[in-house]
Amino acid sequence: MQIKVIRDILEKNDKSAEHVRRLCRERGITLINVLGSPGAGKTSFIQSMLEHLPGKKYVIEGDIASTIDAEKIARMGVNVVQINTGGACHLIADTIYDALQQLTPEAGAIVFIENIGNLVCPSSFDLGESLRVLVSSAAEGDDKPHKYPTTFQTVDLIILSKCDVKDVIGFNDGYYRQGLRMLDLEDKLLEVSFRTGAGEQELADYLTTKLAYIKKGL
Amino acid sequence: MQIKVIRDILEKNDKSAEHVRRLCRERGITLINVLGSPGAGKTSFIQSMLEHLPGKKYVIEGDIASTIDAEKIARMGVNVVQINTGGACHLIADTIYDALQQLTPEAGAIVFIENIGNLVCPSSFDLGESLRVLVSSAAEGDDKPHKYPTTFQTVDLIILSKCDVKDVIGFNDGYYRQGLRMLDLEDKLLEVSFRTGAGEQELADYLTTKLAYIKKGL
Repeated sequence: MQIKVIRDILEKNDKSAEHVRRLCRERGITLINVLGSPGAGKTSFIQSMLEHLPGKKYVIEGDIASTIDAEKIARMGVNVVQINTGGACHLIADTIYDALQQLTPEAGAIVFIENIGNLVCPSSFDLGESLRVLVSSAAEGDDKPHKYPTTFQTVDLIILSKCDVKDVIGFNDGYYRQGLRMLDLEDKLLEVSFRTGAGEQELADYLTTKLAYIKKGL
Repeated sequence: MQIKVIRDILEKNDKSAEHVRRLCRERGITLINVLGSPGAGKTSFIQSMLEHLPGKKYVIEGDIASTIDAEKIARMGVNVVQINTGGACHLIADTIYDALQQLTPEAGAIVFIENIGNLVCPSSFDLGESLRVLVSSAAEGDDKPHKYPTTFQTVDLIILSKCDVKDVIGFNDGYYRQGLRMLDLEDKLLEVSFRTGAGEQELADYLTTKLAYIKKGL
């Protein structure tokens, strides 16, 4: 009975995700769902891409509480909608549909969604996105692909952030990459530090190309 | 209907938690539920306390996948049970009851439970513990009490870990403490680095005293 309800919730969400996808297709919007643990660097990633990527950009900010991240985005002069879930551990497609109606992004725009800081739950909920990105912080340690394979396996791109603390933390590159290799995900990895800027331009270039392919429907 | 089911799940869990609590009371066991984000330092905290706290100790390791942490504990010669949830984002009291039957801890022992790495979901699930500890990593940033108040408010002790990376990360102590103060939690904070050992002995001393009070039922 509990399992049936969970299935119902996921099926209902999948339907809403299709509505979001149709809306985005009609309006030529590219939707990017950004996943990651609390403090992995999701906001820093979005802020960096707002600066580096061409074209019009918008942001949907998901948080349990507070408007801290939305304020950071707004200060950059970017249109942003804040979703506070109260206690809920993930965003759902219905809310994204409403947020898009509020944002009314122009044709050809990119809309970033910052999901709730949680390496587990958001991965089960399709938001109708064109691209799903995981921000995985080096500060969390090198064993994360081994311990949270479910989320890693659902994403299109893995950004290893905070690479400048690798030495301090004693991060073992080989072990992290071994975890990715076991999941056949090694070619999805890009390394970056948004604090020092290392790898930032490469990430922007990669994403620009990737998004161009997505827009062409390739 | 969905809300009713979630309430049913929580009520069922609360009943199981009472069974765990009764079992622990009868056998004189102190149960410590350790919460925190992925990579916050939950295992490091437990390993440190296994070394520093007096008396017999056991561990229940919760993970989505893998036995990495349980192996670390076993290498220390400590009895450990691994729970792999598959995909579930938190531990439940029923599973803890079963794990305790398997561990059969001796009278007067401390049993640590390492919950799933998740700063959101585990806080809603009482495991029948005597003490709930949050390991909050400085590497996650100084805004966490502001953004995840729900979990912070349910714990008895907040351990700010990885304090040795504060400078690298640009961690603002005042802002972190302001977040705790708003939740009336500032006196629950202890700072530590399990890598350098700073604050480790103070933490062990604090916990030894606290556990002695709990055992006396104060």
